[in-house]
Amino acid sequence: MMRTHYCGSLNESLIDQTVTLCGWVHRRRDHGGVVFLDMRDRDGLVQVVVDPDTPDAFALADKARSEYVLKITGRVRQRYAGTENPNMPSGMIEVLGKEIEVLNTSETPPFPLNDEFANVGEEIRLKYRFLDMRRPEMLQRMRFRSQVTSKIRNYLDRHGFLDVETPVLTRATPEGARDYLVPSRTQQGSFFALPQSPQLFKQLLMVSGFDRYYQIAKCFRDEDLRADRQPEFTQIDIETSFMSDEDIMNIAEGMAVELFDELLGIKFDKFPRMTYAEAMRRFASDKPDLRVPLELVDVKDLMQDVEFKVFAGPAKDPKGRIAAIRVPQAAEKLTRSQIDDYTKFVGIYGAKGLAYIKVNDLSQGVAGLQSPIVKFIEPIVLELLKRVGAENGDIVFFGADKAKVVNDAMGALRVKIGHDLNMLTCEWAPLWVVDFPMFEEVGEGQWTSVHHPFTMPHGTVEDLKNNPAEATSVAYDMVLNGTEIGGGSLRIYNPDMQKAVFEALGIGEEEAQEKFSFLLDALKFGAPPHGGLAFGLDRLVMLMTGATSIRDVIAFPKTKTAECLMTQAPAPVEGKQLRELGIRLREKVGE
Amino acid sequence: MMRTHYCGSLNESLIDQTVTLCGWVHRRRDHGGVVFLDMRDRDGLVQVVVDPDTPDAFALADKARSEYVLKITGRVRQRYAGTENPNMPSGMIEVLGKEIEVLNTSETPPFPLNDEFANVGEEIRLKYRFLDMRRPEMLQRMRFRSQVTSKIRNYLDRHGFLDVETPVLTRATPEGARDYLVPSRTQQGSFFALPQSPQLFKQLLMVSGFDRYYQIAKCFRDEDLRADRQPEFTQIDIETSFMSDEDIMNIAEGMAVELFDELLGIKFDKFPRMTYAEAMRRFASDKPDLRVPLELVDVKDLMQDVEFKVFAGPAKDPKGRIAAIRVPQAAEKLTRSQIDDYTKFVGIYGAKGLAYIKVNDLSQGVAGLQSPIVKFIEPIVLELLKRVGAENGDIVFFGADKAKVVNDAMGALRVKIGHDLNMLTCEWAPLWVVDFPMFEEVGEGQWTSVHHPFTMPHGTVEDLKNNPAEATSVAYDMVLNGTEIGGGSLRIYNPDMQKAVFEALGIGEEEAQEKFSFLLDALKFGAPPHGGLAFGLDRLVMLMTGATSIRDVIAFPKTKTAECLMTQAPAPVEGKQLRELGIRLREKVGE
Repeated sequence: MMRTHYCGSLNESLIDQTVTLCGWVHRRRDHGGVVFLDMRDRDGLVQVVVDPDTPDAFALADKARSEYVLKITGRVRQRYAGTENPNMPSGMIEVLGKEIEVLNTSETPPFPLNDEFANVGEEIRLKYRFLDMRRPEMLQRMRFRSQVTSKIRNYLDRHGFLDVETPVLTRATPEGARDYLVPSRTQQGSFFALPQSPQLFKQLLMVSGFDRYYQIAKCFRDEDLRADRQPEFTQIDIETSFMSDEDIMNIAEGMAVELFDELLGIKFDKFPRMTYAEAMRRFASDKPDLRVPLELVDVKDLMQDVEFKVFAGPAKDPKGRIAAIRVPQAAEKLTRSQIDDYTKFVGIYGAKGLAYIKVNDLSQGVAGLQSPIVKFIEPIVLELLKRVGAENGDIVFFGADKAKVVNDAMGALRVKIGHDLNMLTCEWAPLWVVDFPMFEEVGEGQWTSVHHPFTMPHGTVEDLKNNPAEATSVAYDMVLNGTEIGGGSLRIYNPDMQKAVFEALGIGEEEAQEKFSFLLDALKFGAPPHGGLAFGLDRLVMLMTGATSIRDVIAFPKTKTAECLMTQAPAPVEGKQLRELGIRLREKVGE
Repeated sequence: MMRTHYCGSLNESLIDQTVTLCGWVHRRRDHGGVVFLDMRDRDGLVQVVVDPDTPDAFALADKARSEYVLKITGRVRQRYAGTENPNMPSGMIEVLGKEIEVLNTSETPPFPLNDEFANVGEEIRLKYRFLDMRRPEMLQRMRFRSQVTSKIRNYLDRHGFLDVETPVLTRATPEGARDYLVPSRTQQGSFFALPQSPQLFKQLLMVSGFDRYYQIAKCFRDEDLRADRQPEFTQIDIETSFMSDEDIMNIAEGMAVELFDELLGIKFDKFPRMTYAEAMRRFASDKPDLRVPLELVDVKDLMQDVEFKVFAGPAKDPKGRIAAIRVPQAAEKLTRSQIDDYTKFVGIYGAKGLAYIKVNDLSQGVAGLQSPIVKFIEPIVLELLKRVGAENGDIVFFGADKAKVVNDAMGALRVKIGHDLNMLTCEWAPLWVVDFPMFEEVGEGQWTSVHHPFTMPHGTVEDLKNNPAEATSVAYDMVLNGTEIGGGSLRIYNPDMQKAVFEALGIGEEEAQEKFSFLLDALKFGAPPHGGLAFGLDRLVMLMTGATSIRDVIAFPKTKTAECLMTQAPAPVEGKQLRELGIRLREKVGE
């Protein structure tokens, strides 16, 4: 090997030893007739001093510039008293460079990679990703990601899971997002789809008797990208046979517990379990951030006779919800302008306004309240405040609308206020949310799967047929700090139940055969009880590293318009390639 | 968990214990008024006996059929003397079944999955892959594959390699095979390419300072498939910085040694190294099967004055080769009809015939030889036989043609004879082949890369410019039993050398910029010396498991026409999807 040590690994135990380093010039400076080179490699930085006593080395050090690649041999020595740098692990020592070889030079990078890096636009970082990833912060994140997958694999290997690769060139899968298509050359007019998940394949592996499967799998969705989405993303995909939902949750929870303990030193207690119904009631979210100690209180029943139409409408609408959030001791902390901002904030989620009551002095009754709405709800306002447990100094916010709007708006507001007022009670709050609705109404009598059509419902085939709206699924999401990091379910393994679910979804027998005949076949030949889950790796690593964008934990991410600024993908191709595939470009209107 | 033990894990240590099993009915038979069920799960088989003393269980066992999924609770007991089955690990015991739950029934499978499986066509196996993989042989192979990747990851993790994911939706890569394309919806008229390898990305990761990278990566090539190719295949992809070719080979060899030792108990010695030139000279192959103790001997010089045109032409052609293979003591083993078959065999590789000499009795001189060609080469035949070291009872075969034809034909014949005559000297013969030619002539003065255009040549930029035909690369292939299982090279990290190589290949500056601008950019900003290699995982697992087809070590493979018979991919898609992508199908002629 060219080097004897990594720069970042040098410390006082090596004093007086001769070492050889290979790395990049992170920063170079002259001082008192000698050259100081901060040399950087994967492990960190070390200071190299080169003085004129070694004229060859000195001449090269003198000419070296940022990002030159050098091989340096020298002696480790204690730094002079007063020049130590306690902020770097190698800060107590330095290397007196004796021999230098310039392995490569460098033009001046388009942005600085050392401490001078600041306010560099993401576009240029993505164009020069190979330089951006030199920054210790980025390299450290990618290294952390590698440790995460290694620990996960280790855990799953130890628990008897088999790593099986499923196809990337495959058939459209049932997740319902838009597929990426790949034209077939040998069967012109036909297309492969890139998998949105290995869902069907992992179920088939259970039918094959693999018993415990995992894969860290690339998945693909051609959707308009939100800030935290990528067209290709990575899933920790797990499936098991002959296990209950409890068994599966325990295995997955064990994995998360081990991961956080070994990589971050964080000890989790047993994760709380909460039904979807409870999560929506108390936190207006199916992925509640339990670090925030605020809860919703339902007050619809109190509003039945109120005339104020903001409340009266939702109070009488079976699909309406009226809920309050009491923010303790917020009256002094929140200014009028902040409350106005919150009104705008809930507007993003479709709320038409944000009613609130400042509780100044309950001993004065209604007179002790400050609010634009008190006058409209005077008859019940004190009972209302009693219901929510209001005390002097609190502010109580209200949401009243269709339940969906109230949940979206108040669920988000709850989290925002919690963060704004530094109310977080802990750093990490994991939980399981279970028993999701089986179906979601998308139109009058039109239902879609909340998870996917292979999710097992609670109860019998008859129960499902009699009351699909009330059916809940044996599904579970792992939620951390308000983010869903994983989710799954038991799967249907009985052909009759599968048929009933397709019927409820309005998927006819023909369509089911056309799309999923191989899975329906598989259910006929002795499918075992099975279930599993999948974690979003990118999201998980983002949370664990404290990165603010998913792009910062992916080596070569794409932009929100699904482009790679470095390789310029996608790109035009030659006509010959299209002809071979039996396709042509659609003429644009006006051309 | 539903089960207490896997079927295959039961043994005498559990006698008298109550166990619960979950699995499939592998075989069911009645005998003497009781029902015998061979129950199967991932770990193997166990015999369950159910007798009429437990009427509920007996009734269910009686109705159970092949591939029913049962949960059985019972007591482990010693088998009666004389009924043990030493061929199965659980063969000394059986389970007396007390309680049975039918978890699922099964229709009769389209082909038997137990010992009755034989001569089942691959097409039906692929259509019902989820059943085919239930067969213990298949499941065992997939499990072995999982162990291979686990061991490899473990080795590379221990050696400081970081697992980094590179994009699947990317730009055309330089391997030169046909790309799979993915139309972009957001940039209509542009296409992503699926990577033929992560080559450029792994080099960029070295430029980023990752130092040691690996990935078990899916790669894609849209080529007409040969028997042992798949449109998507898996590569163990490795790249390192600041290492010599020797360092890299040592790391990779260490991985192979550990893998074979831990999974197969095979101890490899240090792998021999052989230059490409030597491999071609002695074995007429750049991936010689060293288990076969036959070698080529060049005899072109002896043929210079021979008039027999079969030899005279190649003897005078600078691109000709004339080589002999002596097969010791084959005169009695090979019949005339076998020799005729060999003549046909070399014809596959373009040879126009197969000359041979049977050495009956050298003491009789030419009269002791039996051969259609002796009369044409009488003046030199004894010297020729001396050169090849012929002894009484040998057969000597000759190839004479363009060197390429001789190498293809005689290289293959050498291996075929070695196998036919059971001459293999060992079970496993690994080696490194090194110092490949840099370029291959594809037309007069037209050169292509033997590896890829980023491969580092030996020598200087000047050497390369002065004599590209003679340039050799710092490249190395790991060969096992005549199969290339891995290969790689040091890469060019100097922009001038990269430019010289592009020039030698006739790649103009514009084309280079257009295709690889990001890599050329990367070389300007302090690229470190780097190199790596890649192993073909599918091929490696095939060799290690003794499978005869690569499809038998891939869970869901495609056919030679790149179809998945199970999912029916590729498939037609809706016109709406094509419109969104800005493409249309090309009308077929006559439509």
